[in-house]
Amino acid sequence: MAAARASGIVVSRPVTFVTGNAKKLEEVKAILGQSIPFQSLKLDLPELQGEPEDISKEKARLAAFQVNGPVLVEDTCLCFNALRGLPGPYIKWFLQKIGHEGLNNLLMAYEDKSAYALCAFAFSLGPNSEPITFLGKTPGKIVPPRGPNDFGWDPIFQPDGYEQTYAEMPKEEKNKISHRSKSLAMVKSHFAEAGYTFQIDTSL
Amino acid sequence: MAAARASGIVVSRPVTFVTGNAKKLEEVKAILGQSIPFQSLKLDLPELQGEPEDISKEKARLAAFQVNGPVLVEDTCLCFNALRGLPGPYIKWFLQKIGHEGLNNLLMAYEDKSAYALCAFAFSLGPNSEPITFLGKTPGKIVPPRGPNDFGWDPIFQPDGYEQTYAEMPKEEKNKISHRSKSLAMVKSHFAEAGYTFQIDTSL
Repeated sequence: MAAARASGIVVSRPVTFVTGNAKKLEEVKAILGQSIPFQSLKLDLPELQGEPEDISKEKARLAAFQVNGPVLVEDTCLCFNALRGLPGPYIKWFLQKIGHEGLNNLLMAYEDKSAYALCAFAFSLGPNSEPITFLGKTPGKIVPPRGPNDFGWDPIFQPDGYEQTYAEMPKEEKNKISHRSKSLAMVKSHFAEAGYTFQIDTSL
Repeated sequence: MAAARASGIVVSRPVTFVTGNAKKLEEVKAILGQSIPFQSLKLDLPELQGEPEDISKEKARLAAFQVNGPVLVEDTCLCFNALRGLPGPYIKWFLQKIGHEGLNNLLMAYEDKSAYALCAFAFSLGPNSEPITFLGKTPGKIVPPRGPNDFGWDPIFQPDGYEQTYAEMPKEEKNKISHRSKSLAMVKSHFAEAGYTFQIDTSL
């Protein structure tokens, strides 16, 4: 805590978590708890192509500029090893267009069905701060869909060491090992170590 | 030509064709000829996710803003029908990571190997003009690579009605039927119909 106080950075606004997805917000709240004062906001940010970490950094830069304050942004990728990390950041479009079956089909030519779920959080203190990224990875494999079909590609991702897909796992169980929870744990540690002091001006 | 002159739009700068790819510039010059005064420029524009036409429009907006003048931008997609148009705008990453064999493998699960090459040119008169798009499509199919391997995915795309892949076709032959030539023909017609008057101030 001594180290924490030493950073001396005072943050005068809550961290804006950029999302339009209620489910994501819910998951983030469950993991971060009350340790960081945050609010959520849906922003119309461009979705970029590129490597996951770069995409996430650039998104944080744009968001910090728009919000003019501290922001936390998130990107999720589903990366197939046989496809050298793709569909990766483009998983949303693949899911939308070809569905769970189509995603399984992409690997038809390969014995290797291994994959990893990747979550990239990026935090920026404001418009002129270089964003910091937190990459959480959960290894697993792509399987034919099992479980409730209400959260993206969860039914086709079975994490290593489990018999269930993400979709079949109880929420608390999934939160323990998910790519998102790993990434958020890093966010939490960062906040603890950096020791930002939140002095929120509630008159704003 | 009467209609052309009626538009009355005077353009005081050459059209900036945004590209860093010498081969693309060469192809564009071969097709457009001397009808439009243009220069080329490599700009560091963000690559966006989304539908091909939207990506291209947004790119033209950003380029026109940076150049502060008329711009022509281009995006190329390779769209697999079995994958509902994907990899589409993400073809570059797929080619880079999994190569020609990997691209063929994506269709292993499907009898339907049909695809289309899509070229989206977008033209904007300047920072405050709504871009106009020109979409050229060439139907064909995905095949194991044949021909010289020096221009992207040309070796795996065989246009309908031909026994050769893009890579195997003589340049002039390809230029007659390519997605890019179709799109550029629309650009050319647009310029003829709009009848812009180019009065280039060479002192700039």
